[in-house]
Amino acid sequence: MIVVMEPKATEEQIGQVVDYIQSKGLRVNINRGEHLTVVAVLGDKTKINSTSINTFEGVREVKVIQEPYKLVSRSTKEEDTIIEFKNGVKIGGLERPVIMAGPCSVEKDYEGLLKVAKAAREMGCQFLRGGAFKPRTSPYDFQGLEEKGLEYLAQARKETGLLVVTEIMDTMDIPLVCKYADILQVGARNMQNFKMLKALGRIDKPVMIKRGPAATIREFLLAAEYVVYNGNPNVILCERGIKGIDNDFTRNTLDVAAVPIIRKYSHLPIIVDPSHGTGKRYLIEPMGKAALIAGAHGLMIEVHHDPDHASSDGAQSLSIEQFKDIAKKLNKLIGRIDYDNKNM
Amino acid sequence: MIVVMEPKATEEQIGQVVDYIQSKGLRVNINRGEHLTVVAVLGDKTKINSTSINTFEGVREVKVIQEPYKLVSRSTKEEDTIIEFKNGVKIGGLERPVIMAGPCSVEKDYEGLLKVAKAAREMGCQFLRGGAFKPRTSPYDFQGLEEKGLEYLAQARKETGLLVVTEIMDTMDIPLVCKYADILQVGARNMQNFKMLKALGRIDKPVMIKRGPAATIREFLLAAEYVVYNGNPNVILCERGIKGIDNDFTRNTLDVAAVPIIRKYSHLPIIVDPSHGTGKRYLIEPMGKAALIAGAHGLMIEVHHDPDHASSDGAQSLSIEQFKDIAKKLNKLIGRIDYDNKNM
Amino acid sequence: MIVVMEPKATEEQIGQVVDYIQSKGLRVNINRGEHLTVVAVLGDKTKINSTSINTFEGVREVKVIQEPYKLVSRSTKEEDTIIEFKNGVKIGGLERPVIMAGPCSVEKDYEGLLKVAKAAREMGCQFLRGGAFKPRTSPYDFQGLEEKGLEYLAQARKETGLLVVTEIMDTMDIPLVCKYADILQVGARNMQNFKMLKALGRIDKPVMIKRGPAATIREFLLAAEYVVYNGNPNVILCERGIKGIDNDFTRNTLDVAAVPIIRKYSHLPIIVDPSHGTGKRYLIEPMGKAALIAGAHGLMIEVHHDPDHASSDGAQSLSIEQFKDIAKKLNKLIGRIDYDNKNM
Amino acid sequence: MIVVMEPKATEEQIGQVVDYIQSKGLRVNINRGEHLTVVAVLGDKTKINSTSINTFEGVREVKVIQEPYKLVSRSTKEEDTIIEFKNGVKIGGLERPVIMAGPCSVEKDYEGLLKVAKAAREMGCQFLRGGAFKPRTSPYDFQGLEEKGLEYLAQARKETGLLVVTEIMDTMDIPLVCKYADILQVGARNMQNFKMLKALGRIDKPVMIKRGPAATIREFLLAAEYVVYNGNPNVILCERGIKGIDNDFTRNTLDVAAVPIIRKYSHLPIIVDPSHGTGKRYLIEPMGKAALIAGAHGLMIEVHHDPDHASSDGAQSLSIEQFKDIAKKLNKLIGRIDYDNKNM
Repeated sequence: MIVVMEPKATEEQIGQVVDYIQSKGLRVNINRGEHLTVVAVLGDKTKINSTSINTFEGVREVKVIQEPYKLVSRSTKEEDTIIEFKNGVKIGGLERPVIMAGPCSVEKDYEGLLKVAKAAREMGCQFLRGGAFKPRTSPYDFQGLEEKGLEYLAQARKETGLLVVTEIMDTMDIPLVCKYADILQVGARNMQNFKMLKALGRIDKPVMIKRGPAATIREFLLAAEYVVYNGNPNVILCERGIKGIDNDFTRNTLDVAAVPIIRKYSHLPIIVDPSHGTGKRYLIEPMGKAALIAGAHGLMIEVHHDPDHASSDGAQSLSIEQFKDIAKKLNKLIGRIDYDNKNM
Repeated sequence: MIVVMEPKATEEQIGQVVDYIQSKGLRVNINRGEHLTVVAVLGDKTKINSTSINTFEGVREVKVIQEPYKLVSRSTKEEDTIIEFKNGVKIGGLERPVIMAGPCSVEKDYEGLLKVAKAAREMGCQFLRGGAFKPRTSPYDFQGLEEKGLEYLAQARKETGLLVVTEIMDTMDIPLVCKYADILQVGARNMQNFKMLKALGRIDKPVMIKRGPAATIREFLLAAEYVVYNGNPNVILCERGIKGIDNDFTRNTLDVAAVPIIRKYSHLPIIVDPSHGTGKRYLIEPMGKAALIAGAHGLMIEVHHDPDHASSDGAQSLSIEQFKDIAKKLNKLIGRIDYDNKNM
Repeated sequence: MIVVMEPKATEEQIGQVVDYIQSKGLRVNINRGEHLTVVAVLGDKTKINSTSINTFEGVREVKVIQEPYKLVSRSTKEEDTIIEFKNGVKIGGLERPVIMAGPCSVEKDYEGLLKVAKAAREMGCQFLRGGAFKPRTSPYDFQGLEEKGLEYLAQARKETGLLVVTEIMDTMDIPLVCKYADILQVGARNMQNFKMLKALGRIDKPVMIKRGPAATIREFLLAAEYVVYNGNPNVILCERGIKGIDNDFTRNTLDVAAVPIIRKYSHLPIIVDPSHGTGKRYLIEPMGKAALIAGAHGLMIEVHHDPDHASSDGAQSLSIEQFKDIAKKLNKLIGRIDYDNKNM
Repeated sequence: MIVVMEPKATEEQIGQVVDYIQSKGLRVNINRGEHLTVVAVLGDKTKINSTSINTFEGVREVKVIQEPYKLVSRSTKEEDTIIEFKNGVKIGGLERPVIMAGPCSVEKDYEGLLKVAKAAREMGCQFLRGGAFKPRTSPYDFQGLEEKGLEYLAQARKETGLLVVTEIMDTMDIPLVCKYADILQVGARNMQNFKMLKALGRIDKPVMIKRGPAATIREFLLAAEYVVYNGNPNVILCERGIKGIDNDFTRNTLDVAAVPIIRKYSHLPIIVDPSHGTGKRYLIEPMGKAALIAGAHGLMIEVHHDPDHASSDGAQSLSIEQFKDIAKKLNKLIGRIDYDNKNM
């Protein structure tokens, strides 16, 4: 922590800051510059509240330096976290990038879901995604099939061998969703639902956290820190677009750079959702490729057996045919990346 | 709903869109312009999924026109919603603007809380605010006293007569918080925790929803719609700053214009939190005044008996002395506004 | 400048940073914390390039502390800059807040302009605003009357005594615009047209700089620094809204907090444009009041004699009648503020 | 253009809107919905001012539909614009993606520039970039060598055969820069310097426009429209990052999706600058690859012979060695893309 004093701070004001820091058992180092005096705080900063210091007379600003995320940071754990599932599928590190495919919401028509799952299986995907609980901006939109939807997903898993990823929206639903899902997904709007994050730290299934639409990477990593800190090391991050400058052409701005940044600063796997991240079918292929080549550990793609009649987000869902065509191209790139990773 | 076709859309493509809409029992009106054909959809649009149409060949974009919030809209209910409490305090419409004051978090030191509450009472405030459950970006930060904090708030209410506003962070805690609070506050990061919003629609206490840091006004109103739609008409909105361009001088950009916008388009009361909205003590007075003169139904202000040692957000908390000084100036303005409202 | 080393930086890497800084004739102060080593740089930082240091091995980040704006900063000049015009009108400090009113663009109909000018005069305004050169996003939009427009403004000044504020769009036009204008306005999109800012530093007329739609306050002040540094101390800042979260209800987010922030950190006058800042007629009154009560030295308001047929920005322009009504209310508040300022 | 009336708009109000539109020689089509009446405007919308209609009583909003960019739109010209230089180099369409490399600023040390140019040549680059005029946020930063810098660039072109890209900052400098440059670059902060864009429409050299840090894609394309409309069809677009949510890890958010969007909606070439777009050396390779695989027609990369002592933007500049290493990897990808393009 660095305390920058105002150019006109008096010796008394500087002394008050120093006394306060020392009273907390920390040491200081005072740098008197030509214009400014800077007080560096040494020791365990968790003993001290940076905002308190901000309130002292004569303080211009307090710069906190030590990153507050620890357990998810690569400086704490250098090796990549690789999450392995019972069927041998792995996510993270230099493992072959995965594809999670499926409809935005699970709908009443089980046969439709099964068609999508079979197509995903056929294209070599590892995961079936689908929402049984749906966070919808408007109360008038379709809210999900709830347990019925979870049953459908489990049934499709049984028939195809795909693993199931589905969203958890409320702490109370955790036991129920755990019964059915292989990965519990935290939606973007719940990224800072801290009570739920804590509770997810106490389960033994992997958790996938989607980045909030206005969350910084630090906030994103701190959301993961909540889960890991509470006991669950198996967290997957998912970039899904942030609020950007432009709403005419895309729903969100897919922050591809988040992938190499997170791979550098954290050991956790990071996947990308180009469907929500762009909101447009024609962008899924180029942005999926961009994410993979930038280092994503996987992609999450929306596919619907009949997107023109989907209950939610039809516009960004691929039809089964479109999906197969794109998956073929993505698989070619995944194969190349996998080959390069194994032969580095 | 307006469907804009691509300039080169064929007659067949236009026909498919029209057929689809008519198959849902809706009527269309086709406008053939020089460059573009536009299909207007008439009838109950909830029967149709705008995103489905977006996926038809030849469609450039679908513009949804009818606002999806209804119950909170002034076109549904013209008269202001005025929320009245047992002790006669009212929020909304042309009632005298209120002040909610108190610490960010309730801390172990009850005497400190009581000092703040007494100062608030002395300055004519109507509400004591304070967090018993604290949403914190980092798991290493103070997480709140939980039920003990609620008891303290209730005790302070007993001693001062102030009403209690406190945050609810999880659906499971609703019954507990209802036991103690007069207003249940939904934090900015939970603005789209839809399960909790639904559950709050079924209680008989007023709910105050803080605007998410990247929420549009439409999303903000739709969060309120969730509560009202589920049965609770007593919703207060609270503007608390959005993510802006600048993070050097303020934590957030206080969107003062949200006040007159919401007063025009909704009948719900809207209050403003200049403490979180700016993150700086010296901005609370000018921004509090700005909010009031722009039409806010009240202010929420952080006060701490010892801000230099506060467990959270000390930097933006006023000391009791600072608060009294500012409250005096704000009360003068509130008096003028109240006078003008009563003599319009 | 503070150089934060990576937790694993070697002694050799730290040594390289220190050597480099010392080779530039500066001193260092090394703080070895438990986790991190921090190197503080003391002396005239203009001798050193912060980005260079960023590139050394083992450096995590470089935090620049001394604010790069100097001449416009209140720490350089404590007294408010008050700009006085020949006719005695003053802007800045505790002077009576001013109103600048007029059409977005000067149009062919001189009589219309004169009507607006007379109304402005009648309402006690001090300035007539109007664009002769118009920056328009599309080349197909009206581009301004150019010199003819300047002549009209000068003529209206002659007939009403109002001072003239008009936009300068290109370095080459400076001599021409200087011939006619009392204040040269730099548009938001030209805020970082550095060549033009330099040239405006060499003229003897006041310059008003509008904040860029995505400019931080620091960038805004640095734009002013360009003008002052090049010799012209008479700069007025103008907040006119930044790109925000919401585009449905307003064109921009008026950053009212910029007013008290700039008044704290700079001695320059700051005015507010609620017309461009909101894009909506119904928001001009509440946001104009909010700006004034937050400390603005003046307002800039668009008025058109026939807004339904205006060549540009009709939607945000008031009609003469609407303007008179609002100006009356604003004048009441200006009177109160002026009274309070004189009796502090 | 679609005029949406308020739910309570009277017949008289609707009639006024209709009369106004018809008075301009346009036709209308009125759709009366259950809740809203919508008036569609048919005919040449340039005859009418959308904002004027917005001001009529009873109008809720005006939705403009026809895109205002025409000449740069793919609906006007379906074939890709491919810009060819005298030495046979081409940019655009399915041509081999190019690399532009060089220092941020041209500095006093010509030998350093030459070293970079030779390395670029060696790695198969086609262009040498370097700023002779530098837009700097602060007047205290290095402002460029001006004509001396242009001479250096021309000299390096003579010695290496690379084409020269350099920035133009002011209309007055156009003749001078034209004497030396092969492509005139418009900086991000000048993207809406409309006077300069117009003047660049009248020269016979290609113009490269960088996207403003807060510009929408529509605004970006309209900036290009200014140049093309004024007579110069040879415009290259350059995505260089937009202001995003996060400033801790990157300077900007590189909007990779802008590449496939622009390729879909415009025929102009689009290149990407991962150096400015991220501000970090370690992100240049992954983001350069992401841009190429998403369809970029080229990359612009900062290289400095001695980045630790660069006059500007050293942090994001690669050293010659780093550049060669990355260029090798990028060339491999460029080769693959080129092969795929030629064998589609």
